[in-house]
Amino acid sequence: MKTINCDVLIIGGGPAGGVCAVTAKMNYPEKKILVVREMEIQMVPCAIPYIFGPTLGSSEKDIASCAKAGEMGIETIIAKVEDIDTEKKTAYAKEYEINFDKLVFATGSTPFVHSSLQDSLAFEGVFTVPKNKVLIDIARDYIEKIDDIVVVGTGFIGIEMAMEFAESGKNVTVIGGSKHILKGPFDPEVAIQAEEIMLAHGITFIGSDRVDAVIDHEGDSIVKGVRLKSGKLVDTQAVILATGYKPNSELAQKAGLAIGHYAGIEVNEYMRTENLDIFAVGDCSARRGFILNAPSKVMLASTSAAEGRVAGSSLYGFKYMKGFNGTIAIFSTMVGNMAFASAGITETDAVTGKGDIVVGTFECTNRHPATIPGAQKQFVKLVALRHGGQIIGGQIIGGNEAGEMINVIGVMIEANLSIYQVMSFQVATQPMLTAAPTNYPIIMAATMIAQKIEKRV
Amino acid sequence: MKTINCDVLIIGGGPAGGVCAVTAKMNYPEKKILVVREMEIQMVPCAIPYIFGPTLGSSEKDIASCAKAGEMGIETIIAKVEDIDTEKKTAYAKEYEINFDKLVFATGSTPFVHSSLQDSLAFEGVFTVPKNKVLIDIARDYIEKIDDIVVVGTGFIGIEMAMEFAESGKNVTVIGGSKHILKGPFDPEVAIQAEEIMLAHGITFIGSDRVDAVIDHEGDSIVKGVRLKSGKLVDTQAVILATGYKPNSELAQKAGLAIGHYAGIEVNEYMRTENLDIFAVGDCSARRGFILNAPSKVMLASTSAAEGRVAGSSLYGFKYMKGFNGTIAIFSTMVGNMAFASAGITETDAVTGKGDIVVGTFECTNRHPATIPGAQKQFVKLVALRHGGQIIGGQIIGGNEAGEMINVIGVMIEANLSIYQVMSFQVATQPMLTAAPTNYPIIMAATMIAQKIEKRV
Repeated sequence: MKTINCDVLIIGGGPAGGVCAVTAKMNYPEKKILVVREMEIQMVPCAIPYIFGPTLGSSEKDIASCAKAGEMGIETIIAKVEDIDTEKKTAYAKEYEINFDKLVFATGSTPFVHSSLQDSLAFEGVFTVPKNKVLIDIARDYIEKIDDIVVVGTGFIGIEMAMEFAESGKNVTVIGGSKHILKGPFDPEVAIQAEEIMLAHGITFIGSDRVDAVIDHEGDSIVKGVRLKSGKLVDTQAVILATGYKPNSELAQKAGLAIGHYAGIEVNEYMRTENLDIFAVGDCSARRGFILNAPSKVMLASTSAAEGRVAGSSLYGFKYMKGFNGTIAIFSTMVGNMAFASAGITETDAVTGKGDIVVGTFECTNRHPATIPGAQKQFVKLVALRHGGQIIGGQIIGGNEAGEMINVIGVMIEANLSIYQVMSFQVATQPMLTAAPTNYPIIMAATMIAQKIEKRV
Repeated sequence: MKTINCDVLIIGGGPAGGVCAVTAKMNYPEKKILVVREMEIQMVPCAIPYIFGPTLGSSEKDIASCAKAGEMGIETIIAKVEDIDTEKKTAYAKEYEINFDKLVFATGSTPFVHSSLQDSLAFEGVFTVPKNKVLIDIARDYIEKIDDIVVVGTGFIGIEMAMEFAESGKNVTVIGGSKHILKGPFDPEVAIQAEEIMLAHGITFIGSDRVDAVIDHEGDSIVKGVRLKSGKLVDTQAVILATGYKPNSELAQKAGLAIGHYAGIEVNEYMRTENLDIFAVGDCSARRGFILNAPSKVMLASTSAAEGRVAGSSLYGFKYMKGFNGTIAIFSTMVGNMAFASAGITETDAVTGKGDIVVGTFECTNRHPATIPGAQKQFVKLVALRHGGQIIGGQIIGGNEAGEMINVIGVMIEANLSIYQVMSFQVATQPMLTAAPTNYPIIMAATMIAQKIEKRV
């Protein structure tokens, strides 16, 4: 048993832990910052789907560099913390006893699998999508050799993987309980357009049924297919369970910290637990949505990084106002050659939540004039409050510029801007890069909302 | 002479006039809106450089559609207004007498040529870049047949044209009085990178000299070359004078309206002249910069469109607060396969203007991990006030996503956000579309500024 003393102990080396460590070192350069993580090799989590197809093709291309942390003087050890004494301020791993002043949980998340499908995890050919290179390599090698694959789950991980499989020439079936794919971030009329691209890539989509069981060949524990709630059988050689993630909060719970909704560690706006010396950041924390303050299952590396920055700069007293309370669930993905992006609340969720909202949409091309080579459709939808016009959500379909365009809407949401401010905003437009200045779709969608509010539509 | 009565007369059909007309019709659907413009065919001004090379290749591909205005019930006539009686509220064209209630000048700008070069405009082979299809076609047809061309001017029109000429296989020399190209929107260390791409495309750049005269072959009025201030001669078959634009404000001046700096029509924040019924929008108005309120020569279609929206919604009384006072000069362009974008004030201009500023920069790749196909460098520079950290400027180098990314910074500037707010912002990141969540460069540049302020660097 080796005893280590540090000022700040960060458990976990993913985006939340990594950013928290770097931010802490920048803010408190004299402090000893120690990151303890379980895996020698840290993957870039967002790009895991691209390992399974032509885009990256190998997990070797998806390794997060930790060189910067080392250069900055952040120490890292590979170990699994098994217990924490919060009063003694000591963490215990197999070979280490670590004394700390401040503690940050950045323990991340692991794949969530419905209880009815838990047993099937033992089958050959059934995989989840963990952030673990060893397991990802096993899945990839197995899938490389087969032709038929079922993806269970219609979130972005499921869809990104399905598209990579399709581009590798496999027969892909996506199965989800929701009518449309990507239903969290997108309203149906937007999701349908992603679906159409998916179908055009030869993927089969079963959206009004659920997987009830994974079945093998009469007890051989090798996957043969999935049985749906409707009784239908889908034959397959492999199954990917992309059915979400759950917070790794067992260690915190064992240490006596309060656990909130969806099993996340309870934190305040500064990512601090009730113990002023203990923080939690990233997927292991209990998140809330930014408008209704409702419990949120959103797990995004960018949200985790934002939380890491907040905690890392506030370990020894909070320094800056946190920009916005709650996750705005800001997100983008590619489906074929179209980007789909979303921020804030959808119309569907706003209506369900009884918001008095007004929606504006605008469609144009992402270059101007439309004769510019490579020009393609661009569509923006904004959701705003009727009274005051505050922008609370947005969705974009477009070319790859949409990945940054959603951040324009994100800033508007986080800064509490209204459509009345946005309508006269100045935007950079350029023929090769954007829509026309006369038709810039975020401004036009805001204008449509102003018109509706004025006409009481 | 035909007499026409209308409620709102808009003189000019470019981005400012067009957007103003559409906005006016949306806000005052019962009013008769009349656009009077001189040219039958309206070009998309921003894409004119691309007519001269492989990107568009023809002016037929750069025509602005006016169909929408017609569908909305906006009337248009082709005529040149030659006089206005503001007391009688009547405008006079050759064949029309137009009575109006509200009047909007959207008369645009025409190429500015230094007095020493005015005479050379009569030479065969010397061209400016007017927003006029007939003249652009003449220039294009002439240049198509020659090999050697000199571009005078290092603004974005000059550089975009030079690159198109180079990509058409011509020998191109760019000559400007400034040490670096694009000196308005970019600090030297950024401009140099655009310059390097330009040079790599085989373009010759003479940056420390000026064109003193255009010379012909001993009195034949066909261009032979240019003589520089240093005495050096550069032989050429054609000269493009891309030396800026001047407001078309003669008509307004004749009508007795106040003319401000750089010959622009004086307006307040709502684009209104001292006469409450008369407005001016776009390049013909006298613009100011957003921080120092200093006279600004910026002429961008996107700024014009923003002004058109402000005036169009405020003709019969101002309705919304104008988002931000003054132009933030938000701008992007492509040089080779890199995008260069800028918003707000540069470090150079802030230092010259005696600002107590702090600068932060960050460089990364525009995809994550960097192994994603097509990943390229991304660089962000932010300029903020030391006290309070308000973001007042930003510059970006990147792939084509930089065209929208600069709008993220633009919103931050227009919404008066500080680096302290931005540091904890949530951004959408995706492997195929953006930089890594852990290293999103706008946030990282803001963080660098916070560090410098804290350490009093």
